[in-house]
Amino acid sequence: MPTDPQHAHGSRIDPFVDRYAARARGMIASEIRALFAVAARPEIVSLAGGSPNVSALPLDVIGELAGQLIADRGSVALQYCPAHGDPGLREKICEVMALEGVHAHPDDVVVTVGSQQALDLITRIFVDPGDVVLAEAPSYVGALGAFAAYQAHVVHVPMDDNGLIPEALDAAIARLTAAGRCAKFLYTVPNFHNPAGVTLAAERRHRILDICGAAGLLVVEDNPYGLLGFEGEPLRALRADDPDGVVYLGSFSKTFASGVRVGWALAPPAVREKLVLAAESAVLCQSSLAQLLVREYLCTQPWREQIKIFRELYLQRRDAMLGALGALMPAGCQWTRPAGGFYVWLRVPDGLDSKAMLPRAVSSRVAYVPGTGFYADGQGTQHMRLSYCLPEPDRIREGVRRLAGVIEAEIELRETFGSGRANGNIGVDTPGPEVA
Amino acid sequence: MPTDPQHAHGSRIDPFVDRYAARARGMIASEIRALFAVAARPEIVSLAGGSPNVSALPLDVIGELAGQLIADRGSVALQYCPAHGDPGLREKICEVMALEGVHAHPDDVVVTVGSQQALDLITRIFVDPGDVVLAEAPSYVGALGAFAAYQAHVVHVPMDDNGLIPEALDAAIARLTAAGRCAKFLYTVPNFHNPAGVTLAAERRHRILDICGAAGLLVVEDNPYGLLGFEGEPLRALRADDPDGVVYLGSFSKTFASGVRVGWALAPPAVREKLVLAAESAVLCQSSLAQLLVREYLCTQPWREQIKIFRELYLQRRDAMLGALGALMPAGCQWTRPAGGFYVWLRVPDGLDSKAMLPRAVSSRVAYVPGTGFYADGQGTQHMRLSYCLPEPDRIREGVRRLAGVIEAEIELRETFGSGRANGNIGVDTPGPEVA
Repeated sequence: MPTDPQHAHGSRIDPFVDRYAARARGMIASEIRALFAVAARPEIVSLAGGSPNVSALPLDVIGELAGQLIADRGSVALQYCPAHGDPGLREKICEVMALEGVHAHPDDVVVTVGSQQALDLITRIFVDPGDVVLAEAPSYVGALGAFAAYQAHVVHVPMDDNGLIPEALDAAIARLTAAGRCAKFLYTVPNFHNPAGVTLAAERRHRILDICGAAGLLVVEDNPYGLLGFEGEPLRALRADDPDGVVYLGSFSKTFASGVRVGWALAPPAVREKLVLAAESAVLCQSSLAQLLVREYLCTQPWREQIKIFRELYLQRRDAMLGALGALMPAGCQWTRPAGGFYVWLRVPDGLDSKAMLPRAVSSRVAYVPGTGFYADGQGTQHMRLSYCLPEPDRIREGVRRLAGVIEAEIELRETFGSGRANGNIGVDTPGPEVA
Repeated sequence: MPTDPQHAHGSRIDPFVDRYAARARGMIASEIRALFAVAARPEIVSLAGGSPNVSALPLDVIGELAGQLIADRGSVALQYCPAHGDPGLREKICEVMALEGVHAHPDDVVVTVGSQQALDLITRIFVDPGDVVLAEAPSYVGALGAFAAYQAHVVHVPMDDNGLIPEALDAAIARLTAAGRCAKFLYTVPNFHNPAGVTLAAERRHRILDICGAAGLLVVEDNPYGLLGFEGEPLRALRADDPDGVVYLGSFSKTFASGVRVGWALAPPAVREKLVLAAESAVLCQSSLAQLLVREYLCTQPWREQIKIFRELYLQRRDAMLGALGALMPAGCQWTRPAGGFYVWLRVPDGLDSKAMLPRAVSSRVAYVPGTGFYADGQGTQHMRLSYCLPEPDRIREGVRRLAGVIEAEIELRETFGSGRANGNIGVDTPGPEVA
């Protein structure tokens, strides 16, 4: 790579410092980013990343598909397409959603650049600066990043092992109403929550919809992991029972490949129309190549069987992590037991700070994401997200062993010196896509 | 495609009508969209689209590249990547920009989802609602769409056959200063302008930079067509002479393939850092597959020769269009003579309205984009954009013949009945990516 000694990146005075938009003021790289660059080293067991295990795909078959697609239909696959997305892919997306009880018309699907873009666009069309968005506590870091970009005020609603607590949602809405405010939408990850690892119980789903319906509150249901459950059939989506009140976000990042960046939003027609226009001003259109490759994959390959392969693989890794946590974690630690997806949410004993502890963990060759990144309000100092999606089971066990050692050492320190660490976490850490 | 009789799209009452953000109020589909759906029929000669001639690519070779890439390195190509973009691709992008005199460090390049996303992100980090953006008159419709999405106030600056007029820019800045305002940036397409077809004269470039430098005004240089000039060497980019004052936007949509959606922004370090964070909240990261495919193409294929092939092909088509315009257009029509790129900007005689005329043109089996789409302030009723990039030369001549007939008929109508048509154009028409 060329080097340029005059190039002291970021250290020069920025001549445009007074010109940025108000929304850009909060755009500051997280202090933990540098640490994650270190954490990418091979000697470190990273329990931080949310990267799917794409090596389990039949890469030669997919390569063949892509090659044929370009050779035979390159004049379409390499050309612009409508912002709405490829109609054939939108039909296949409806087939995928049907597995969760969703009956949708392809016209109401908008193809997006991963579901992250759907989050960005839904926030763009609904949120003025200062508007309230309700979100679980904790919540997906990428969603919090999108909400922050539009200067939303995120109000967190507690969860328990059965997901979002209906009474807590009711109470949060009542508090907003009493304060003369109303939220723009409820953002929820009902299945195999990122980062909490919990799932909204089936019996709570109607109650959540009823509460939102009564309040006229739009539900944004983000469901990247719904087909990656370890037991039984996929749970019925919220959208399945409320087509007019729910915007459903889906993604092929975890069921096929994150590197194609294909996600979607299913929305009521008026919202969908605005999403298409917003997508157009954001990126003109999604990649034809990516869309047609996913369509070909869904049309010609045994994608349901591939999802079973992924499920098996993540189940083994989850079991490795839960087994190691049970065997090795010191007393006072608590963690969730995910029935699908990628993540365990771990609580360290009182007095410990997961973010302050991270440098020690990295020097002990294990990485995780501190809990503060998953809250907009500074909570989470006692939590961390552990991912089991990518490393081999033995590496996961080794990573947990190292982490247990770090936590034990911190407990000893606390017992020796007391817990005097300041907690400076306010706002959202954005640890970057490699950990999202 | 499934049908659903209950699904009267867009006709039901929207329960969220009071909930949208202020910026969403302007998101209304253009009335000319429906017409463009008709214009896609094969019997119609479309001079409307800005789609590159991707069929001129060696599709089998590119298919082979993509297939090998996925088979050999699928675990990277199908995985997430950093929001900043692939480092190897960013190096190659610097090589491409060097053809226009730009010397840049790959760290200062951010890979985006086409240059449209770069436009979105640069507006996102600089523009608060009501902020002024200076832009040529006319200006690229996609840029106006991005500016509108952030509620910018666009102030147009006149051009002539040599591009943006320095004195007019000076005067516009002075008027803003006198009004106690200052623009966030100047948006300019210096080479083979979309839609105007003109190029900023070399001798004006320093003058434009001096004016902006004196005013502390950032320049956003959008240059998708710079390598597609028909004569001589590529012109020196504005960025080449002002690394600290210019954000340069580039794209592979016209020099390689629009369907991969790979563009970039080159920005001073402080701006670049914010662009990376903004990109992350917008789409998490760009497609690894798309980036690695472009990188492989640039590393292994004769891409400079391919650009020559494109240039020859567009030159033939430009000549077909200019020849037909000269031979067939009625007196009173004027048009630009592009030295590169895709577009001719045509002015119809006084009293004619290009948008009102479009339905008649479509029924005469020819389509164009009315000029009003390229202004934020209702100008352009007497203009239209004609593209010569996609149709065969004979089809271009036939299209111009049909269009000349339509204009002649309109002139006759005007002479018989006078020019009494109301002009209802206010704001930006967004005709969709197929015509961008």
